[in-house]
Amino acid sequence: MEFHFFGTGSGVPSIERNVSACAVRFLQQRGKQWLFDCGEATQHQILRSSIALGKIERIFITHLHGDHIFGLPGLLGSRSFQGGENPLFLYGPKGIRSFVETALQVSNTHVKYELTIEEFSEPGLLFHEEGFKVETILLDHVMPCYAFKVTEDDRPGELLVDRLKAKGVPPGPLYRKIQQGETVELPTGERLEANAFLGPPKRGRSFVLAGDTRPVKELIPFAKNVNVLIHEATFLDDKKGHAHEYGHSTMADAIQLAKQANVDHLILTHISSRYHDMSDELQKKAQNAFANAVVAHDFYVFHLPLAKG
Amino acid sequence: MEFHFFGTGSGVPSIERNVSACAVRFLQQRGKQWLFDCGEATQHQILRSSIALGKIERIFITHLHGDHIFGLPGLLGSRSFQGGENPLFLYGPKGIRSFVETALQVSNTHVKYELTIEEFSEPGLLFHEEGFKVETILLDHVMPCYAFKVTEDDRPGELLVDRLKAKGVPPGPLYRKIQQGETVELPTGERLEANAFLGPPKRGRSFVLAGDTRPVKELIPFAKNVNVLIHEATFLDDKKGHAHEYGHSTMADAIQLAKQANVDHLILTHISSRYHDMSDELQKKAQNAFANAVVAHDFYVFHLPLAKG
Repeated sequence: MEFHFFGTGSGVPSIERNVSACAVRFLQQRGKQWLFDCGEATQHQILRSSIALGKIERIFITHLHGDHIFGLPGLLGSRSFQGGENPLFLYGPKGIRSFVETALQVSNTHVKYELTIEEFSEPGLLFHEEGFKVETILLDHVMPCYAFKVTEDDRPGELLVDRLKAKGVPPGPLYRKIQQGETVELPTGERLEANAFLGPPKRGRSFVLAGDTRPVKELIPFAKNVNVLIHEATFLDDKKGHAHEYGHSTMADAIQLAKQANVDHLILTHISSRYHDMSDELQKKAQNAFANAVVAHDFYVFHLPLAKG
Repeated sequence: MEFHFFGTGSGVPSIERNVSACAVRFLQQRGKQWLFDCGEATQHQILRSSIALGKIERIFITHLHGDHIFGLPGLLGSRSFQGGENPLFLYGPKGIRSFVETALQVSNTHVKYELTIEEFSEPGLLFHEEGFKVETILLDHVMPCYAFKVTEDDRPGELLVDRLKAKGVPPGPLYRKIQQGETVELPTGERLEANAFLGPPKRGRSFVLAGDTRPVKELIPFAKNVNVLIHEATFLDDKKGHAHEYGHSTMADAIQLAKQANVDHLILTHISSRYHDMSDELQKKAQNAFANAVVAHDFYVFHLPLAKG
């Protein structure tokens, strides 16, 4: 999985950081791509990256503030203009449909692909299909705002070739079926349960991407043991009161939460423009407090390899 | 007057050209600024220019296609976030209100300045105030699309000092009143009509900015003798059929029109991305056909000095 950060600023664009957007590319799934939030000029940032609009299959919106959604109408239109034909699913809080439909209708934009807009209000399971489970949890911002947890299905364990050989099974199509978890029947009529010939299942990878929020206790169980937590850190700790008043977190808030949730990697984003030209300092500060913390910058790409276990 | 081109491409943004926007700065009017069209990421382009969001007093929209309006919600919000407090007038075809109001409402954006949205459908006089007359004309595109003509009021002619001296009027406050066109009364009781002591009025400057359109005959009288005509040239002449089919003009169309209207300067914009990396070639082609033609590029600034006549 690759995480592409296109906007790592907060509120309004600056020359250093654009408004929020993060794409995830699933390298093991034909390079399919998902997008999380879509601030204005996300399509402009994507032009300068290896992400292709036509390959984006799903878009998830954490909340309806302009710095998270104003890039949607243009991106949806350009995806069609560039020949994107695959269906696209857009998930967001109640109101996202009215925003997108009004913009497309007023501008007479008729996309040539199937666009499905799903509004959610109750947190919980969003879907479980194509090898991924996506769940949401409500955060604590000045408007309804959500975190998404994406969990890859576990993959079957390694094929225990020695055991199959001992059974006299020759390498070939039966091996592949067992590897895929199927029960197979030998020419002798004997049935082999796949599990008996596979090592322990390989745990699917998981990540949580949270929208704007004050520190939220419920995120700790939600993000427990995930590989990657993407969390806002709009301010540093000297602005803690200000941060919480306006529904945001400090870097210290996010790091504390990452430790409590025991995540492998923490990626901090949604950085206030008051910290412009301070990226190195922010990065040092974060890493001192949590070794696997990164302060994202625009065009930062994080690569999460396949789980070994 | 300075014309700042922020988006000179057509349809979708490219790395070379953003989607449509052009700001005009009135140097003789405390640097006040107007904006014509506002494609996505116009505010991002403005960040890299000398234009200030807070000084933009009026925004004019030629038509509702996404590449001309999708930057509006973000720009309106950022203008407020940056402390812009002056009232803002937004003029556009019917539908612009629904687009802007839905975007601001859904995103919970409350601008701190007075925003007045005026939809027009009948072409004609839009307003005549603060020294400027603005008129519209309907063009010929695939949706209702307009051109704007901006005409500066004439300024009083030069003070004929010799004539005033001959009347025995000493330099001082009376001179200033006469210069401003006021009738003054001398201590002797004699009344002096300002016109008798002023040279011919200085003609106000004028420009026409046209939105997307097939070549339109009605533009010839509308743009007659203006100082600057800003016209689209989406395609070159080899794509004339295609251009007209999709409601656009070729460079040759625009140049012919500029000649027929006898304009001083022609600025071509809305260039298709099929001509990327061909700016020099386009510029030569235009200038060969019309000496005062310029093919605009993003961040091009055209300066129109005060009229001498």
